[in-house]
This record gives sequence, C-alpha cells and structure tokens, in this order.
Amino acid sequence: MRHDHIISAKQLSREDIESVLDRAADIAEDPSAVADRHAGKLLATLFFEPSTRTKMSFTAAMKRLGGDIVDMGPVDQSSVKKGESLADTVRVVEGYADALVMRHPLEGSAKMASDFVDVPLINAGDGAGQHPTQTLLDLYTIRESAGFDDLTVGIMGDLKYGRTVHSLAHALTTFDATQHFISPESLQLPRSVRYDLHETGASMREHTELDEVLPSLDVLYVTRIQRERFPDENEYREIAGEYQIDAETLEAADDDLVVMHPLPRVDEIAPEIDETSHAHYFQQAHNGVPVRMALLDLILEENA
Amino acid sequence: MRHDHIISAKQLSREDIESVLDRAADIAEDPSAVADRHAGKLLATLFFEPSTRTKMSFTAAMKRLGGDIVDMGPVDQSSVKKGESLADTVRVVEGYADALVMRHPLEGSAKMASDFVDVPLINAGDGAGQHPTQTLLDLYTIRESAGFDDLTVGIMGDLKYGRTVHSLAHALTTFDATQHFISPESLQLPRSVRYDLHETGASMREHTELDEVLPSLDVLYVTRIQRERFPDENEYREIAGEYQIDAETLEAADDDLVVMHPLPRVDEIAPEIDETSHAHYFQQAHNGVPVRMALLDLILEENA
Amino acid sequence: MRHDHIISAKQLSREDIESVLDRAADIAEDPSAVADRHAGKLLATLFFEPSTRTKMSFTAAMKRLGGDIVDMGPVDQSSVKKGESLADTVRVVEGYADALVMRHPLEGSAKMASDFVDVPLINAGDGAGQHPTQTLLDLYTIRESAGFDDLTVGIMGDLKYGRTVHSLAHALTTFDATQHFISPESLQLPRSVRYDLHETGASMREHTELDEVLPSLDVLYVTRIQRERFPDENEYREIAGEYQIDAETLEAADDDLVVMHPLPRVDEIAPEIDETSHAHYFQQAHNGVPVRMALLDLILEENA
Repeated sequence: MRHDHIISAKQLSREDIESVLDRAADIAEDPSAVADRHAGKLLATLFFEPSTRTKMSFTAAMKRLGGDIVDMGPVDQSSVKKGESLADTVRVVEGYADALVMRHPLEGSAKMASDFVDVPLINAGDGAGQHPTQTLLDLYTIRESAGFDDLTVGIMGDLKYGRTVHSLAHALTTFDATQHFISPESLQLPRSVRYDLHETGASMREHTELDEVLPSLDVLYVTRIQRERFPDENEYREIAGEYQIDAETLEAADDDLVVMHPLPRVDEIAPEIDETSHAHYFQQAHNGVPVRMALLDLILEENA
Repeated sequence: MRHDHIISAKQLSREDIESVLDRAADIAEDPSAVADRHAGKLLATLFFEPSTRTKMSFTAAMKRLGGDIVDMGPVDQSSVKKGESLADTVRVVEGYADALVMRHPLEGSAKMASDFVDVPLINAGDGAGQHPTQTLLDLYTIRESAGFDDLTVGIMGDLKYGRTVHSLAHALTTFDATQHFISPESLQLPRSVRYDLHETGASMREHTELDEVLPSLDVLYVTRIQRERFPDENEYREIAGEYQIDAETLEAADDDLVVMHPLPRVDEIAPEIDETSHAHYFQQAHNGVPVRMALLDLILEENA
Repeated sequence: MRHDHIISAKQLSREDIESVLDRAADIAEDPSAVADRHAGKLLATLFFEPSTRTKMSFTAAMKRLGGDIVDMGPVDQSSVKKGESLADTVRVVEGYADALVMRHPLEGSAKMASDFVDVPLINAGDGAGQHPTQTLLDLYTIRESAGFDDLTVGIMGDLKYGRTVHSLAHALTTFDATQHFISPESLQLPRSVRYDLHETGASMREHTELDEVLPSLDVLYVTRIQRERFPDENEYREIAGEYQIDAETLEAADDDLVVMHPLPRVDEIAPEIDETSHAHYFQQAHNGVPVRMALLDLILEENA
C-alpha cells in the first residue's frame, strides 16, 4: 500500500483493501505481537464534530500498538473558536504528532486539510463525504462472517443520505457482490450513486420491501431512518416502522444471515435479535480496533 | 477476591476489603514495584456525569500500573445524545478495553450495565446508589490514620442524601466500629439505612449536636449540607452553620482526632484546620490512587 | 536551574533561559535519546480556560519524554463548578501527578496555586499575567533562526494588552536585542512595561508605522489586534488593516527577515506569506514541543 493520506475508500484498490484486512486478521489473532510496535509514536485526534465510537476506537487502536494520543479536545474549547482556519490548525497540529485523524462536518475538508500537512492524515468522516475506516471495518466484518465468495448483500434503510452505505456499496462492487437496496421511495439511492455503481458493472437491484429478497441474503446491513428527514411525524413513524426488524422478520431469513448496523441504533433492530446468532453489529463495532490498528500500522510503517 | 464486577461496597466481605487495603498499602509503600504490571492494558472510562477527582484518580491509578485509558468524553459529545441505550453503549465500549469504569446519574445503572458486558465493570457512582471505591479509600484512610481497633467514628452533615455516608456506615459495621451520626433532624439517616445498620448489630447513636460526642471520637467524617435541600435560604444558612467546624470547635477534640471529608468542601471545614495535624482530607483524596490501583490490579489479574 | 515552580519568565536568569534552550536544541536534534527518560511520570494538566495548542503541546512534550498525562477536563465538568477553591483543587490534584501545568483566567492565580503544592507547577498562562513557556519557545525560535548576536526585533500589533509581547520584550533585554515597537497609538505599550524596559537599559523605540523600521529588522513578531478593543467596527477595520502584512509589505524587508506570530492568526499575515522563507510561525508553534520537553525534563530531574 502506498498512500500518504487516507481520504476515501475509493482511493483504495482491491489489493489495498485486502492488505489492510489481512493485517487486521493477523492482529486480531495475536494482538500481543504488535503491542509495542509503534511505541513512542503519537497520533493527533481532531474531532471537529463529536463521534464517541470512532474516536474511542482510534484511541484504543493506537494504544494497542504501543503508541499514544494527542487530542485536540472539543471544538468549543479550541482555537477554531478564535477564528483560526482549518489549514492553520492542521499545520500547527502536525508538529505535535506523527499522524493525524480528523473528523469534520464539512464535505471535502479532509482532502483540503491533507494538502497542507506532511504527516499522514486519515479521514474519520467529513460530513456527507467519506469515512473510509468505517467501510474497511464493514468489509472486514463481512469477510470474517460471510466471506466474499458468491456474496449477496442487502442494504436497508436511509440510502439517500447514508454516507456509510454509499461507500460500502462502492467497495462491494470491487468484490463482485450482488447488492439489493431496500428503502422507502423517498430515501432511495441518489441518482449519482446509482449511476456510479452501474458504471462499475455492479450486480444490483432496488426494492421497497425486504420480504422479496430476505431469503436470498447472506448479509443484511441495516441503517437508521432519521426522524429529521420527514416533515411529518406520523409519516416518519409509519415508514420507519416498515424498515425495522425483529425476530419475526428474520424467520424468513437464512439461518446464517449476518445482520450488521453501523450503530448507534434506535429502533431499527429489536433487542430480541441481540441474543441470536444473526447479531453481528457489536462485533462489527469491535472490529474497528484491529482494522484501525492495521491501517495505522501500514501508514506509520510507510512513513517511518 | 472473586468478583467480576464491583458494583457496591456491600458485595465485599471483610476479607475482600482487607485484601484490597493490604494491597493498597503495599503499593503505596513501593509504587515502582507495580509500575509496569498492567502494561498494554486499557481501561475505558465512561462518565455519564462529571466527576473531576474520581476520574483523575482512576486515570492516575491505571497509568501508575503501566496501563492506559480510553475515555468516552463528555456525554454531550457522545452517542448517548443520538438516543443510544446504555446497554448498547457498554456493549460497544467493552470491545475497546479490558475493563470499564462507569459513573451514571441513575441508581441501579451500574448493575444493569454490568449484566451486558463480559469485561469487569467498576461502579464509580450511580446516582443515589453506590460508589464502592469511595468507601474503600475512606476505609483505607481510617485504617492508616486511626486503625480499626476499638474505633469510634463520628459522621456529620447531610446523612439523609449522602450516598458516601450510607456506604461507609455499612462497611464500618464490618469492622465493629462505634458510630455516631450527627445531623440536623431534617437530614437524619433514612429509616431504611438505620434499620439496615441495626440489623447488623452495629453500635450506633444519633445526635443533633457535635459537642456531646466530639471528645470521644477517633475520626470525624464531615459531609456537605447542600443548599438545595432547603426551601428557605435563611434556614439553610442557620442550620449549615451549626455543622461547620473550625479551630475553636476542635479544641474539645482529642489531639489525634482525624478529620475527613469526601471533598469538594465549601464552608464545612474552615481553612485554618488545613494546617493542623487533624486535617486528613487531602491525604484521603490522594489515597484514591493506591486504593484504585489495588482494586484494578486485583480485577485485571483475575481476568487476565 | 533551580526552581520549584515556573511562574514567570522574569524569574529566569539568562543562564536559566540558555540552559533550557540548549537542552531543547539537543532534544530537537535527537528526540529518541529522551524517549523513555520520564517513563512512569505523570503530568496533571489543569486548564481552567481553553487553550488548544498550549495543551496539545504540553501533552505531546510529556509523552515524547515517555511520561503521561492526567487531565482535569473542561472546567464546566469539574469540581470547580461545585464551588471548590483553587487552593483545594490543586492540593487534591497534586496527589495524582508528579508535576502540574495550569492555565487560569485570573492574573496571579499560578503564583497563588504554587504556594499550596509540593510538586512543581508550571504556569501555562494566568490571564493578563505570565505565560513563561510561550516566551521560552519564542526565544528558542529567534535563536534558531536569527540568532541573538546583534539582533534587531520588531514587535507589532496590540502592544497594550498582549501578555506574550510584554514577557518577550522583557526577556529580549537580557540578550541585548534592539527592539522596535510598532502599534497604533491607542495600543502602545503600557506605561509600566515601558518603564520596566527602560530600567533594564534596553535599546528600544516606538513607532506607529512599520515602513520606517522594516528594512532594519532581523525578526518581525506580529500579534493580533482584537476587534473587542474598539468600540467602533469601522475604526477597528481601518486601524487593524494598517498592521496586516502581505507579500507586498515584505518587499522592503531583508531577505532573511524572520516573521513570527504566536497564533492563532486571523488576518494579520496574508496566506501568501506562508509559502515564503519568511514564514516561521508554524515552526514557532512546533518548537513548543522541544522547549516544553526541555523544561519538563529539567523540572522532573530536579524533583526526582
């Protein structure tokens, strides 16, 4: 792998992705082998908008590699409040660390910031833009549970605004997966994403109901339908309700169906599913650690 | 000691407590002996309500053992804001660490959370519920200063709402201490706590004035009377004033009287006492580190 | 160097300063030589007002020495909210760490706090008071770029309220620098600072325009003119505009002119200067790490 900055999953070739997933698998199997690997190295975390699990996961990953964190703290406490530009902030902070992880509400900000720094920068989400480590941990979870061979994935919920979903769908085309997109009509894939996927020759279909495809799925990736997308509360309740799953829903599914969710969930997956073998969403969250360890390891190695 | 989770001081036998205090004493005497003991281990800190000293103390303890911290950050920055349940939060976070410390405003939340995780969880305060490490450091402070033999303790201030006090009082019965409870009538021990203590066969008496018992005390444990307990500001001032101590108050006390306070204090103890040999409250706060080191050490060892 | 606490740059002799700068230079040249030097040591960071770069810089410095941090967190989360005095807070926190770094909005607070603790305390800014590590990193930057021999420095902008500026000006007298102060009349050096500098026999002059002195300068230290100093927005714009520099401004400067700024900047220095060899302000910010490493190293060594 040869990338200074990790801005988008799209920049990664299938070979790049596999090298990260392979290393993640090695690390997950024997974390002690890398426990001191990056001792003395510092990762700066700049979260211009909050993200508990992504931040904790990167923190754990860096520390599990023997490294440590220099955190910017909450934005309302930072120089940004004094009117500092993002370009200035990252140019100052790169002097404090060996790599940067940044989340920012503005699409394109990670790319822009990376143009100003010499140390590697990882995009941990830039608004409606990209979040490549989420995609990598999703792929890792799929590979470890269902495998990529002859894979059929259903992606359900808010497909219009879901950054996670677009990025994952694009990456899955690399692995020749068959994809089913299940959503209310008002939250279907944006035209540009659909076009993009067709361009890659992806095998894909769109649906408004889960029933018709559920039995054929190896993986069902559920995302949240957000209240704020609907002007009317009743309309929201009615539509969101149709895309929630419970034990009864899954009766029609394959015994080995893998249910994933980027979390946090609200009502999309009934708690009764947590105890079943379908539930892979907590493991999926935990997989963030070995996957981010693998990525950090590759990046710090390149730049050592 | 054999406990997966540390939820309440009540779950600890006298033997359990003594094993923690013994280890704390060993650690305090020679901290360098354990400086690398838990290198590579991570403790996740989840403070759903703020607590400067408890959080700093746990952080120092874990780092003094060679381990490190993964902090959730302030709640207004967290997934909780997005409507995530506590059960989901802890099930995600357990994937980032080897143990959890949690403070939460809701009584019973620590017990509930512990039912969902496999890594050990330490309750760092659950609202009006329990705060076992505060009790342990209080006991440690008493043992190191006055000893448990033939011990007479006075506990003064807000005995109605003081979580710290109920837990300490209960634990002291294990060590056969004689206890005097000094408070305004409106802030006496709740009936249930009094009943509970009587059940254990505790030697205890209740008072509205300190004078009558002060000379007999080995330890005086002072707590704050909170303004918000009184509808009337004048009534508050008058009553709180009667339970504040200064140099003059302590003239009637034994020379070796140990004065404790869980801190922060406001006006309960006059600053002039800080310089006297009675003042043990700062040492008490500092004792949080070796005591929490001892507890973490025992827990991480068990689960290694 | 023999100081328990670092409260003000004024307490440091020329010899003290040079010993810090020498050590910083050694560290910058070979950071790996000190990577484990203070392993196991803890630095408590108490920021009673936010300061992204100072806090990140101290954090990076302590970790680059192999040590670690115990942070108090934001003040609105702390015991201070419950009415605890500063004296109590620092007396508790000193039990959690081997040294303290404190920023506080109140002038004189660092000195006051230091009277209550036994571990060394470093002032990271006390309101309109002192900020000695900023002065040290400014001096280090000057020494590494222009050197102290036959040095001519221009200091421009808000000279009335700028804490950074007063402290630097005073320290520069120690190195026999010629100093030019450039500001609007309403923001000239306060009488007391001017008097203070004259007392030391400093070679200094005051100006309202940069043009007259620019060609003679080795270093131009720019500070921000704050909007809130002016009752009238238009007056602010007009005046601030006169003290902003761009590529055209610098045409009259020496090729080797070093431009510095404590950052964050807003409009004082045009971005087009960033790419020129004049721009030393990002390097200046980065220099905070080796300088603070040097200071921490000296202090922890003394108190080991």
